[in-house]
Amino acid sequence: MVQFVDVAGMSRWMADEGVATLIADLVAYLESDYRRWEEFDKVARIPAHSEHGVIELMPTADAELYGFKYVNGHPINPSRGLQTVTAFGVLSDMATGYPLMLAEMSLLTALRTAATSAMAARLLARHDSRVHALIGTGSQSEFQALAMRAVLGLNDLRIWDVDPAAMDKFERNAEALGFVVHRATSAADAVDGADVITTCTADKVNATILHDDMIAPGMHLNAIGGDSPGKTELDADILRRADTFVEFHPQTFVEGEIQNLPEDHPTIDLWRVVDGQVPGRVSPEQITVFDSVGFAINDFSALRFLRDRVSGTAYAAEIDLVAEPADPKDLFSVITEVRTVPSR
Amino acid sequence: MVQFVDVAGMSRWMADEGVATLIADLVAYLESDYRRWEEFDKVARIPAHSEHGVIELMPTADAELYGFKYVNGHPINPSRGLQTVTAFGVLSDMATGYPLMLAEMSLLTALRTAATSAMAARLLARHDSRVHALIGTGSQSEFQALAMRAVLGLNDLRIWDVDPAAMDKFERNAEALGFVVHRATSAADAVDGADVITTCTADKVNATILHDDMIAPGMHLNAIGGDSPGKTELDADILRRADTFVEFHPQTFVEGEIQNLPEDHPTIDLWRVVDGQVPGRVSPEQITVFDSVGFAINDFSALRFLRDRVSGTAYAAEIDLVAEPADPKDLFSVITEVRTVPSR
Repeated sequence: MVQFVDVAGMSRWMADEGVATLIADLVAYLESDYRRWEEFDKVARIPAHSEHGVIELMPTADAELYGFKYVNGHPINPSRGLQTVTAFGVLSDMATGYPLMLAEMSLLTALRTAATSAMAARLLARHDSRVHALIGTGSQSEFQALAMRAVLGLNDLRIWDVDPAAMDKFERNAEALGFVVHRATSAADAVDGADVITTCTADKVNATILHDDMIAPGMHLNAIGGDSPGKTELDADILRRADTFVEFHPQTFVEGEIQNLPEDHPTIDLWRVVDGQVPGRVSPEQITVFDSVGFAINDFSALRFLRDRVSGTAYAAEIDLVAEPADPKDLFSVITEVRTVPSR
Repeated sequence: MVQFVDVAGMSRWMADEGVATLIADLVAYLESDYRRWEEFDKVARIPAHSEHGVIELMPTADAELYGFKYVNGHPINPSRGLQTVTAFGVLSDMATGYPLMLAEMSLLTALRTAATSAMAARLLARHDSRVHALIGTGSQSEFQALAMRAVLGLNDLRIWDVDPAAMDKFERNAEALGFVVHRATSAADAVDGADVITTCTADKVNATILHDDMIAPGMHLNAIGGDSPGKTELDADILRRADTFVEFHPQTFVEGEIQNLPEDHPTIDLWRVVDGQVPGRVSPEQITVFDSVGFAINDFSALRFLRDRVSGTAYAAEIDLVAEPADPKDLFSVITEVRTVPSR
C-alpha cells in the first residue's frame, strides 16, 4: 500500500506542528540535500504550455529515492475561483521502482518555497536586516513572511499588491500571526527602507515590478514570481549590478529573471554557498538576488521531510495504487480473481 | 475533488467489461488520437536509471487535456515477489491545470500496450494469419494474446519462456480463455510456423531472442520488450530486411530495437499508417516489425478512454488531492481553518 497525504491530512499536520516550525525544520532537510547536490539526477522541469498557463513535471533522484512533483501555474485561475498553483507529488523507492508516498503539494509547495527562501536569505541577506517588503500578497505570501521571520527575525512587513482584497486578506492573516504590517501605496513605497524584498506576483508577463532606482545597496531580493518563460518581475538593470544566486542554471536561464540577460551572465550556484564552497553575502553594500524558480530537489527534500514526519501517522492514509498479484508475473490474475469474490 | 480509480476499481471494471472488449474499444480511442498526432505536445519520456531498473515520466497534451504516466521497469523485481512494471497516471484539464483523474496504470498499461499492438497488427500483419507465437509469458502475455485474437482472430498460440513456471501460469490463464496453447521447447520452436510473433521479455540486456534465420517471409513481429537503452530482443539483421514501424522516432531510437542500428535507418511512423498517409503491409512476403516502446499518447488515449467510461461510476472514488480555499488567494486559510474544527 502507498501512503497518501491528502489536503485534510496536510493541513492538519501543518496546523498541529505550526508552519514556522515546519519551515525551520525543512530548511535543515534542504541544506542536507543541497550539500550533496552532485549526487542527484538533475533535469530542467518538463513543461506543457497553453494559452493561459503551464503544467510541469519536476523529477529528481538520488541513489535511494526518486521524487517528482506535478505543478500547474495558471495566473487566470483566481478570476474563476481557482488557485493559480496546485500541485501533488510522489516519492518512490529507486531499488524497486515502487511508489512509497503520494501527497498533495499545494500546501507543501508553499512550505518548501518558503523554506528555500529562508535557506537562501540566511546566507544572502544582511544579518542586521529589520524590514521585509512583500510585493504580491497571494497564496505564497504568508509562508514567505513566516520564513523570513524564522531565519532573520523580520517582524516588520511592508506590503503591496495590485489587488486590494489580497492585501486585506494578507493583513488579516499576518496580524493574527503577530506581524506588524504597513500597507504601502505602491511597490516603490513598499520597498522604501526595506532590507529584504520578496516579489511573489503571478502575472505571466515580463513585468517590471521593481525598477533599478528602487533598489538600495545592501538589499536582498528574494525573487519568487519570475519562474516561467515570459514571466519575470525585475528590471534587468538590477541584475546587472547585483550578485545573482540560482538553484539550477539550465532551468533558471529558461524560467528565471536571468532569461532577460545573455546566457553567459554570471550566476552563483546556491548549493555551493550552502556547502561552503563559495561565499554568500560578502559586504554590507552588496545587492543580492535569489532568482528562485523552484527546482525538483527542493520538492524532493520536502517529500523526504514529509515521509519522515507523517508516514504511519493519522495524517497519512493508505491507497491501493499498485497491483499486488500473489505471483508477480500473473498480473492477469488481478482481474480474473475479481470474478470469484462477491460484488462490492 | 479528483476522481481516483484504484487497483480494486480498475480490476473490477476490467472483469465486468471483459478485457477483450475493452482492448477493442480502446483501439478506437488510439486510432482517433493517432489520426490527430500532430495536435499533441510530444517529448521523449524522461527516465531515471539505476542499477536495477528505470523510473520514467511520460507526459503529453492536446489543447484540452494533459496526461502523464509514471512507470517503472525493474526486471529483478519478480525474484523478490514484486512486479517488473507498475504504473499510475493522471489526466488534467489544460485550461485550469487542475488534475481530473488519478488512476492505477499497471493493469491499464497492459491493456493499452495490448491495444496498441492490436492497432498495429491490424495494419501490418497478414490478414490470413493463423498462429501467434509469444516469447515471454510474463505480465503482459495474456493481454497480448487477447489483443491478437480481437483483431486477427488468432486462437492458436505457441509459447516460450525461460521460466517454466511462467509458462505454467500462462497455460492456465490462456486455456481458461479458450486459447489452444502449444508449449514450445525453445524460441526457435515457438516461432516455427507462426504468422505473428510477439516478443515480451523483461531482461535489461541487449538479448537476441530472435535470430535472423528464424524469421520467414510474411511474418509480423510485435516487438514489445525492447524498450529501454541496453534492452533489446531482436537480431539487428532482422531489422535490416524488415520494414520497421515506430511510435515516435526520437524516443524509439533511444529505447527500441533500432538503437542497435544507425540513426538514419529508415522507419515508418505508425500514426501515418493509421491515418492512411502511408501504407502498412504492402505484400504477403514483407516482414513487418512494430518496434513498440510505449509512447505517452498511448497512455493519454487510455486515460481518456477510462475517464469516459468510469467517471462518476462505482469504479471510481473521489480523493482530496487539491486544496480548495474559499478565497483562491488565501491558501493559508486551509491551515488556519483547521484549528476551528474538532480533531478527527
